[in-house]
Amino acid sequence: MKRVAVILSGSGVFDGSEIHEAVLTLLAIDQNGGEYQIFAPDKYQHHVINHITGDEMNEKRNILIESARIARGDIKSLALLNSDNFDALIIPGGFGAAKNLSSYAFKGPEMDIDKDFTKAVESFHKAGKPIGGLCITPVVLAKIINGATVTLGNNNDSVAHIDVVGGTHKDTTYGEVVYDKENNLFTTPCYMLDGSISEVYNGATNIVKEIFKHI
Amino acid sequence: MKRVAVILSGSGVFDGSEIHEAVLTLLAIDQNGGEYQIFAPDKYQHHVINHITGDEMNEKRNILIESARIARGDIKSLALLNSDNFDALIIPGGFGAAKNLSSYAFKGPEMDIDKDFTKAVESFHKAGKPIGGLCITPVVLAKIINGATVTLGNNNDSVAHIDVVGGTHKDTTYGEVVYDKENNLFTTPCYMLDGSISEVYNGATNIVKEIFKHI
Repeated sequence: MKRVAVILSGSGVFDGSEIHEAVLTLLAIDQNGGEYQIFAPDKYQHHVINHITGDEMNEKRNILIESARIARGDIKSLALLNSDNFDALIIPGGFGAAKNLSSYAFKGPEMDIDKDFTKAVESFHKAGKPIGGLCITPVVLAKIINGATVTLGNNNDSVAHIDVVGGTHKDTTYGEVVYDKENNLFTTPCYMLDGSISEVYNGATNIVKEIFKHI
Repeated sequence: MKRVAVILSGSGVFDGSEIHEAVLTLLAIDQNGGEYQIFAPDKYQHHVINHITGDEMNEKRNILIESARIARGDIKSLALLNSDNFDALIIPGGFGAAKNLSSYAFKGPEMDIDKDFTKAVESFHKAGKPIGGLCITPVVLAKIINGATVTLGNNNDSVAHIDVVGGTHKDTTYGEVVYDKENNLFTTPCYMLDGSISEVYNGATNIVKEIFKHI
């Protein structure tokens, strides 16, 4: 049984993990014979967004507690993630990766990154274990992993930022996975493209299958 | 293109829609050539549950706004649902069906039901259009639709309540769908059973496929 650590960053595309990407990543892991444990930072999310209007709401929400909605309660603090216990790491997208795991949404390539997130990524990377990133997550991974080759889809403002953080961007379309062999790093665009939920399922399935080939 | 109205009841299994069931229902509709519009009641949810501890949190959340997280913002108030514009209605499960769409979680078979939800179900039923219910939702549907035959899986306390509300229960296991021909009503147990996310995907896929045969 392949053991995958999944890091979430809240519950909702505009202030947390993209819910479809998160659920379909879990589904793909299970359908391909893996098992998962979900983690999230135990701290407040950057802000709370009304997902209808896009306005900020006058609330405070904890990333771990909100991520537990997607995890059905079975979740651990990111600070407890030990790469020794897992074969791979996967991080779904959503603005949570750019607002909670990092400050990319506000500072661009000059982003700060959550210390426990950096530590987790570095630990899997150092151990040579596969790391997968969906959607906007690859720009954060490219900031942590020097000289990474990743994808953010194509033809969007973030693509140029990969160069700025010292990585290389490869254009992709629906469901395609970029494999950076040197870093054992896998990325796929999902909702960075204007795709359907089926295309996100294909992307999640393809990245999990590619990762599982390398375990 | 088959047009499906999907009614959500929040975002999170313990106080809203079960997120996996909701996402996998949307996926199944898309994968089988349908399109969906999501609706939810524009009112406060019964309460807010910390999904790690199970404790009630001192917060108020609006069902429509929280459901918008699953809908990625593309959602309408349940009060605006007109069955003329759709070929079928599907309602995923989660405690939201038993706490927000109805008071089944607190009153059992003597439950009250949200007026807009009753109106929506009655409207599709009167028009002879297929209605699908996942997980705990069938007990609410059986309260609305006289003499319905439904499933809540098997061997749980809620099964006996189907008789009490005037319906007939059929036992099922993972992924099985009960079709009540007279009422054009489809039900499947999903997380009423202790299944995996892949089994919930199978259930959602099977119910959507069965419904689409009858459109």
